[in-house]
Amino acid sequence: MTAKSLDVVGIGNAIVDVLVQSDDAFLASHGLTKGTMALVDEDQAERLYASVGAGLETSGGSAANTLAGIAQLGGRAGFIGRVRDDQLGAIFSHDIRAVGTRFDTPAASSGPSTARCLILVTPDAQRTMCTYLGASVGLDPADLDLELVAQAKVLYLEGYLWDSEAAKRAFIAAAEVARANGGEVALSLSDAFCVERHRDSFQELVDGHVDILFANEMEITSLYSTASFEEALEQVRGRCRVAALTRSEQGSVVLADGTCHSVAPYSLGPLVDTTGAGDLYAAGFLHGWTQGLPPERCGQLGSLCAGQVVTQLGPRPQCDLVELVRRHLG
Amino acid sequence: MTAKSLDVVGIGNAIVDVLVQSDDAFLASHGLTKGTMALVDEDQAERLYASVGAGLETSGGSAANTLAGIAQLGGRAGFIGRVRDDQLGAIFSHDIRAVGTRFDTPAASSGPSTARCLILVTPDAQRTMCTYLGASVGLDPADLDLELVAQAKVLYLEGYLWDSEAAKRAFIAAAEVARANGGEVALSLSDAFCVERHRDSFQELVDGHVDILFANEMEITSLYSTASFEEALEQVRGRCRVAALTRSEQGSVVLADGTCHSVAPYSLGPLVDTTGAGDLYAAGFLHGWTQGLPPERCGQLGSLCAGQVVTQLGPRPQCDLVELVRRHLG
Repeated sequence: MTAKSLDVVGIGNAIVDVLVQSDDAFLASHGLTKGTMALVDEDQAERLYASVGAGLETSGGSAANTLAGIAQLGGRAGFIGRVRDDQLGAIFSHDIRAVGTRFDTPAASSGPSTARCLILVTPDAQRTMCTYLGASVGLDPADLDLELVAQAKVLYLEGYLWDSEAAKRAFIAAAEVARANGGEVALSLSDAFCVERHRDSFQELVDGHVDILFANEMEITSLYSTASFEEALEQVRGRCRVAALTRSEQGSVVLADGTCHSVAPYSLGPLVDTTGAGDLYAAGFLHGWTQGLPPERCGQLGSLCAGQVVTQLGPRPQCDLVELVRRHLG
Repeated sequence: MTAKSLDVVGIGNAIVDVLVQSDDAFLASHGLTKGTMALVDEDQAERLYASVGAGLETSGGSAANTLAGIAQLGGRAGFIGRVRDDQLGAIFSHDIRAVGTRFDTPAASSGPSTARCLILVTPDAQRTMCTYLGASVGLDPADLDLELVAQAKVLYLEGYLWDSEAAKRAFIAAAEVARANGGEVALSLSDAFCVERHRDSFQELVDGHVDILFANEMEITSLYSTASFEEALEQVRGRCRVAALTRSEQGSVVLADGTCHSVAPYSLGPLVDTTGAGDLYAAGFLHGWTQGLPPERCGQLGSLCAGQVVTQLGPRPQCDLVELVRRHLG
């Protein structure tokens, strides 16, 4: 592998989150399944927004949160995703660049507005998401900066992109460029419903293109249609170099080159909002991985970053991650 | 006074806040004075934004925060202010209506974008603000819903409006309608620099139009150019029915109908961000006042609401204020 100028480049939906406090009754009355992500069109998004309380807006997007986290950890990060040239697009672009992530995808000058995700946070700190994909869905191979992809040690892809045909093509094209240039490909399965929508296609992707797979318990059991986590773990064995599987308060399991490592969770304070937990786990893991740390240590870094982000509202750490790592894993 | 359908109607700048963590060195290098508000034009706003870290967006605006707080306390509240028909305008409009405040001012369909305030929060929890007034500065008498003003027990005005000639005229027109309909007029001095810019004009306003005056220590000493709080207190005596003067960790002094009441502060947790402290003091006070509570009790309500909002990031309480009041003052 030639020397790389970037550690991780990610491709994902460029989204601004609207965080709103909610409750189980609201989820039930709108047919929403707690802890999952539902896609909505612009009209549905407007209607839903009109029925919720006051919000807090913050940049989000699964892969974008991960790449922002890697930059906050001191890694060299790049992000590819599509916003519109509107106010929310300006907020997204500012925030990801402000933490040091390279972000050059041109903003669309016409078409749908910047993607928004309404995140309903319930008193148990769980988050339930309704996403209007807007401009982000139009990401296609023409938007891909393959030069950027070629420069990365790891290309990181979010499963959510699979919901768009154009993005899916961009996704595979990028994976091929990454590997052709000696890089590795990492994939997050994103959401159990997303896996269900694209199960066969994800299985092929994991077998054919993925070196490092991130999934939570629901997602990995959905991918292999197994009844238990243990069965899913056996299914994924040998299919990719690393599988980093998160299990909420039970920590995570890192299966790397045939060896299984159990990683304990970090509890850094009262649970406030689980938004971004998986994204920050991937950030910590990939930062460790691209620094050449052993798999178990990468899992600990992921676990620590996830443990921090759930103690605050919103998916991007409001604290100094370098200092956090120094204090807990220094 | 005829029966009123609203408790408080407020007129102010309709602003979306961008909260960013900062430090003293940044304030110094940009010539900003901690704890105050500076007006910036769109170019300055863009340049400043480009130089700060990732932000958190939330609806703000001084009087708007107060009127949102009154609605959250269970009061009947209305707000008059001008946004543009853009994404930030939609966020502002949603949030103030979502808590139950009536807000019908039509959004501008041309001209500058919705007002933004960049709020730099330093590690001591102080906030320093740079405001781009945008569409809000165009509020003029034609935008005033005088029917709404006539229906309110109290008309609440923020001093910040004084920075716009058109808004200032709207402001006085509204004060006259309020009094002609048996309502009272309340004014917040907003900011020491704002008072300095308009000292003579504010003194005339207090003498001629104001029943209830809100100010912090810096603002009231600036208004009367006195060296001490005590001297300013003597100066304001007799000039309006009530002066509610806040002194941060020293609580507040309520001078009502010639009698002085000292009100203790509430400490409800670690200090996170003082944004909205004065606005929520006014919300608590005016809610008590319009429910017919005695002045000292109104001060306690103000003190409690201010004590809550400084324990969170952003100027609008993310907790249930009715429950908070029941628990502490029930």
